[in-house]
Amino acid sequence: MKPEARNPNLDQLDTDFLYHLGLDTSMDLEGMFGDVKYVCMGGSPVRAEDFANKAAADLGFEVPEGGAKPIGKTERCSLFKVGPVISVSHGMGMPSMLIFLHELAKLLDYAGAQDVKFIRIGTSGGVGVEPGTVVVAEEGLNGKLGPAFEQVELGETYSYPTGLDRQLAEEILEARGEIRAQLGKTMGTDDFYEGQGRLDGALKPRYTEADKMAFLRRAHEAGVRNIEMESTAFAAFCLRAGIPAAVVCTTLLDRLQGDQVTSTPAELAQFSDNAQRVVLQYIRGQLEKAAA
Amino acid sequence: MKPEARNPNLDQLDTDFLYHLGLDTSMDLEGMFGDVKYVCMGGSPVRAEDFANKAAADLGFEVPEGGAKPIGKTERCSLFKVGPVISVSHGMGMPSMLIFLHELAKLLDYAGAQDVKFIRIGTSGGVGVEPGTVVVAEEGLNGKLGPAFEQVELGETYSYPTGLDRQLAEEILEARGEIRAQLGKTMGTDDFYEGQGRLDGALKPRYTEADKMAFLRRAHEAGVRNIEMESTAFAAFCLRAGIPAAVVCTTLLDRLQGDQVTSTPAELAQFSDNAQRVVLQYIRGQLEKAAA
Repeated sequence: MKPEARNPNLDQLDTDFLYHLGLDTSMDLEGMFGDVKYVCMGGSPVRAEDFANKAAADLGFEVPEGGAKPIGKTERCSLFKVGPVISVSHGMGMPSMLIFLHELAKLLDYAGAQDVKFIRIGTSGGVGVEPGTVVVAEEGLNGKLGPAFEQVELGETYSYPTGLDRQLAEEILEARGEIRAQLGKTMGTDDFYEGQGRLDGALKPRYTEADKMAFLRRAHEAGVRNIEMESTAFAAFCLRAGIPAAVVCTTLLDRLQGDQVTSTPAELAQFSDNAQRVVLQYIRGQLEKAAA
Repeated sequence: MKPEARNPNLDQLDTDFLYHLGLDTSMDLEGMFGDVKYVCMGGSPVRAEDFANKAAADLGFEVPEGGAKPIGKTERCSLFKVGPVISVSHGMGMPSMLIFLHELAKLLDYAGAQDVKFIRIGTSGGVGVEPGTVVVAEEGLNGKLGPAFEQVELGETYSYPTGLDRQLAEEILEARGEIRAQLGKTMGTDDFYEGQGRLDGALKPRYTEADKMAFLRRAHEAGVRNIEMESTAFAAFCLRAGIPAAVVCTTLLDRLQGDQVTSTPAELAQFSDNAQRVVLQYIRGQLEKAAA
């Protein structure tokens, strides 16, 4: 985090309780997290654990027998640490994501961790790309196709830009190896059903199949290659904080072909693995470069 | 769900995969869920499990040895069924809540369940009420203190009203027994830190302590007695669907006194229990009335 972004009000707190992580500043945060260089965030606790164990195997770090163990409380998220990598779940949607961004940024600031990068690894709906393709985001776009994240503070709406670190995106893309991956804009919406123009929600939608397809084509023309639910808040927060950030998501389906996720569990696991593998290949390359 | 609200596009689907629940229409949903009358939603899987076991004990339904077992997949939520009660987690924030509202409403429609009520049971920040007080929402207000939920659909913003079922709110309040509870407006925000005017986020806020207090007092004057992150989306969805709905949240702190959640784990557990108890006392009364 860049020093000028840091919240000076935190200096007034005797103890800062990072409530949703279940960690606080009475603990030895520097000893626990001082060496962190990569924060890898995924939607579910299952994926966070899975990524931690893959990271240990791939990058050559030890985990306890039976696999990586979560740190802090596990009611709202699961956080694992493997070498210089935190793997943590962020739930679904911008509000949940933002809670963990604030608490992780504070955690790493208190820990004195330096040169940390934040990478969201997720799943998404593709727009004009084959299911299983990994999209590395060039930029986050909101549901109105604008490069901005809107947030209400004390009753007023403010807009924050959603650019992402271009160099980091290209370095991650270069690490793709055999995995099908590409750059593209990632649209972040505040709903999975009507917010993404699906026709299979519970309620009678105000739009038709033709309206939906016209919008998805418009999004595709604007450079959108996938749709998920966290990219704009994530990009805006990291840009404000001065944290280099990337969004790396596998596509589970092509929305230009339909709305339902119909792949088998085995296919979905493979798709999800693709984005994790690309990021692990990137981190391995960086660690090898640093050790050389 | 009222028939005119139902999405007619669903009739085109051979099988509807309720992706985040891990259930689909090839299963015997009527046999599994046809008798459901109450859907009780809470933030975390731990609380959903806890509520299911309390419901079984309180309402006199059996659960397997070791406690209630989740139905469907548990990666994104945990769903339990005890007699006519579903207890299910919804994560944090409106986007996560909406995913489960759509899939639960479809589930119960496919199951042929009749006269179902949706009740959100949660925790919240209080505004001018003693920590531990249960607030039964009269109405949801958004972060701009308006009675509306705004949603972007195909690039356009639409606004939906956030009224709640007055009779249901009063019946739940009447069931409070010894527990401190009251009616009040519940403000739903899209962020826990800057979205709720906290001064303990990671980033330097654009507002001061004085700005925050002025806003919280304005909210209090508008009738807000607590702040959480799901009420407006929940109220708007249920109103559109024609599902009677209530929001019943314990307050963990009084925001007019500070920003941090500093109660002990035992106090927090007691506070969380208060909202669950009020709802269980309400449901027990209704079941006794129906059986009489």
